[in-house]
Amino acid sequence: MDKQLNIFGFAGSLRAASYNRALLRTALELLPKGASLEIFDLVGIPPYNQELEAVMPDQVKAFKQKIKAADAIVIVTPEYNYSVPGVLKNALDWASRPTGDNSFDNKPAAIMSASTGILGGARAQYHLRQSCVFLNMHLVNKPEIFVTLAAQKFDDKGNLTDAKTKEFIALLLGNLVNWTRQLQATI
Amino acid sequence: MDKQLNIFGFAGSLRAASYNRALLRTALELLPKGASLEIFDLVGIPPYNQELEAVMPDQVKAFKQKIKAADAIVIVTPEYNYSVPGVLKNALDWASRPTGDNSFDNKPAAIMSASTGILGGARAQYHLRQSCVFLNMHLVNKPEIFVTLAAQKFDDKGNLTDAKTKEFIALLLGNLVNWTRQLQATI
Amino acid sequence: MDKQLNIFGFAGSLRAASYNRALLRTALELLPKGASLEIFDLVGIPPYNQELEAVMPDQVKAFKQKIKAADAIVIVTPEYNYSVPGVLKNALDWASRPTGDNSFDNKPAAIMSASTGILGGARAQYHLRQSCVFLNMHLVNKPEIFVTLAAQKFDDKGNLTDAKTKEFIALLLGNLVNWTRQLQATI
Amino acid sequence: MDKQLNIFGFAGSLRAASYNRALLRTALELLPKGASLEIFDLVGIPPYNQELEAVMPDQVKAFKQKIKAADAIVIVTPEYNYSVPGVLKNALDWASRPTGDNSFDNKPAAIMSASTGILGGARAQYHLRQSCVFLNMHLVNKPEIFVTLAAQKFDDKGNLTDAKTKEFIALLLGNLVNWTRQLQATI
Repeated sequence: MDKQLNIFGFAGSLRAASYNRALLRTALELLPKGASLEIFDLVGIPPYNQELEAVMPDQVKAFKQKIKAADAIVIVTPEYNYSVPGVLKNALDWASRPTGDNSFDNKPAAIMSASTGILGGARAQYHLRQSCVFLNMHLVNKPEIFVTLAAQKFDDKGNLTDAKTKEFIALLLGNLVNWTRQLQATI
Repeated sequence: MDKQLNIFGFAGSLRAASYNRALLRTALELLPKGASLEIFDLVGIPPYNQELEAVMPDQVKAFKQKIKAADAIVIVTPEYNYSVPGVLKNALDWASRPTGDNSFDNKPAAIMSASTGILGGARAQYHLRQSCVFLNMHLVNKPEIFVTLAAQKFDDKGNLTDAKTKEFIALLLGNLVNWTRQLQATI
Repeated sequence: MDKQLNIFGFAGSLRAASYNRALLRTALELLPKGASLEIFDLVGIPPYNQELEAVMPDQVKAFKQKIKAADAIVIVTPEYNYSVPGVLKNALDWASRPTGDNSFDNKPAAIMSASTGILGGARAQYHLRQSCVFLNMHLVNKPEIFVTLAAQKFDDKGNLTDAKTKEFIALLLGNLVNWTRQLQATI
Repeated sequence: MDKQLNIFGFAGSLRAASYNRALLRTALELLPKGASLEIFDLVGIPPYNQELEAVMPDQVKAFKQKIKAADAIVIVTPEYNYSVPGVLKNALDWASRPTGDNSFDNKPAAIMSASTGILGGARAQYHLRQSCVFLNMHLVNKPEIFVTLAAQKFDDKGNLTDAKTKEFIALLLGNLVNWTRQLQATI
């Protein structure tokens, strides 16, 4: 029998009512059997400064430890200025440090994004994919989830109401689980 | 007679001994006639959160005011995880907000990078260029300055000792000044 | 009085019924006063091979000569495999050669794209923008024209029927003309 | 016992003396046990035109058939104008067509590049990686091989003489073989 997979997820926004945080919460309800999802809040991760590496802030220590313990990662990224938000990139920068202790090394992962515009965060996702090459992550290719016109797809309480998007999220999570099992298979 | 041009610059690292901060300081000595450069330190700019926009932090207010007052911008970017550092991107995110108050709008600009590796920060620069499309900045194309193997090109006190790199910086700053005058010309 | 501006345009598809070719033809009707547009067909440009540079194919010679003679350039790019079509990139490769004879050098330019999907060619445009840094072109930033769901916006004869898209094209062409005049101004 | 893996490779230059073609030939000597490499020449692949899809050119048919039959793919890309050469992209465009018959679907792959400059083709590789997301290929992350200053690393006959680069190529090929076996493992 397959072992239970432990997925770790975070969204690149600090705003409580963020559509991207809401998108990640939706994943909780759409998990395939055999997988759980723990969500982490990036609030409290300070701006990266190499001088602070010797005494890593507690919130960064916790973030790194949870990434390492996970079987797979889900990153949900807003798009700011046609790229990944500084807040999200800053968390990745911390987790990749110090040299030789990249917490993301060799992790299977999936990414999603939401925006109120018509491109749904696509530009941020391709920048994020480039960072993941350095981080040595293994990303699921399909389906790519770009939630466009987000204001029409979530209700006032941050519940995703768009059935098609839910379907895609369930498919992506299923693919992530299969991909993770493939990368963990004994050869 | 040409009016004096006021250039505003910042580097995307908080570390005092950063090669990228040192690279920006070098620009102070290599300015063409008719231009001055003010350097800003990103220390103290908190993680962006839309909820804080209504009461912008003082350091952000100062950053935005100085960008708006400048004739031209110089951004010096380290490369972290094949992209712009979160710390730098976060500062850009703040300066672009709130909607309708993008401080960088219509500014001429030049970018540079340094790294201890062999690509000299190139990957970060192309991501930064994409953000500058949204920010509606007008970037100088040439020369592109990728300071490779930085540990060999700066002395212990952070002085750039590589003559060829200095030549390129002087050329870039000269081009930025000409480009700015072109964009300010009356038509 | 302003001199007449001569714009040169081409689309990255060889298919007669291409939406991108149709998009470029639409520009003919939406030009601001004081500007003309000549459209070039990439059919007949062979695959680039450095060995052929000494005796440039006639179609390439004509392409290079027209680019050089233009005041400004319009490039319309389909998106194939999340990037610029090989056919279009191949034409750019020829026009940039041989070393020291880059036909695009210093040209103001605008880009557009159309696709039947929901991103409208955006991924191709950002790759194209990166090539334009090397080519030393000066691209208009706004508006960015990503014609999504193209099958719904053109009629059977390849006429653009979407009023909003026409408005954006007229705005882009107007901005290109102003940008070109700015870059040609005496300082 | 592991089955023999059949790797299929091509380089994005038509020039006989191309460093990138030479780089791919070097791979023939550095294969790990249990793998073979067949090299394909892109000469003769015509510019892509959707109108020709119904009667695919013979060279394209052969290209597609060999990709499909392979266990893994190696793509060697020059960098032209900060991106993938049109000639290489055109071959990818053909192989991805028609809709529903993407020959690269689900293939493990590795990429390399060489240039006479200091960035070694890096900009082309990241654009190629983005195309590979659409093509649903699974790329090896490490080591990334950017052969810089190629004129100093190959002799007059196109033999790679740089020992360190050979070591990296052997490592990349070994990783590709392991990665392919992992993706073919039964779960």
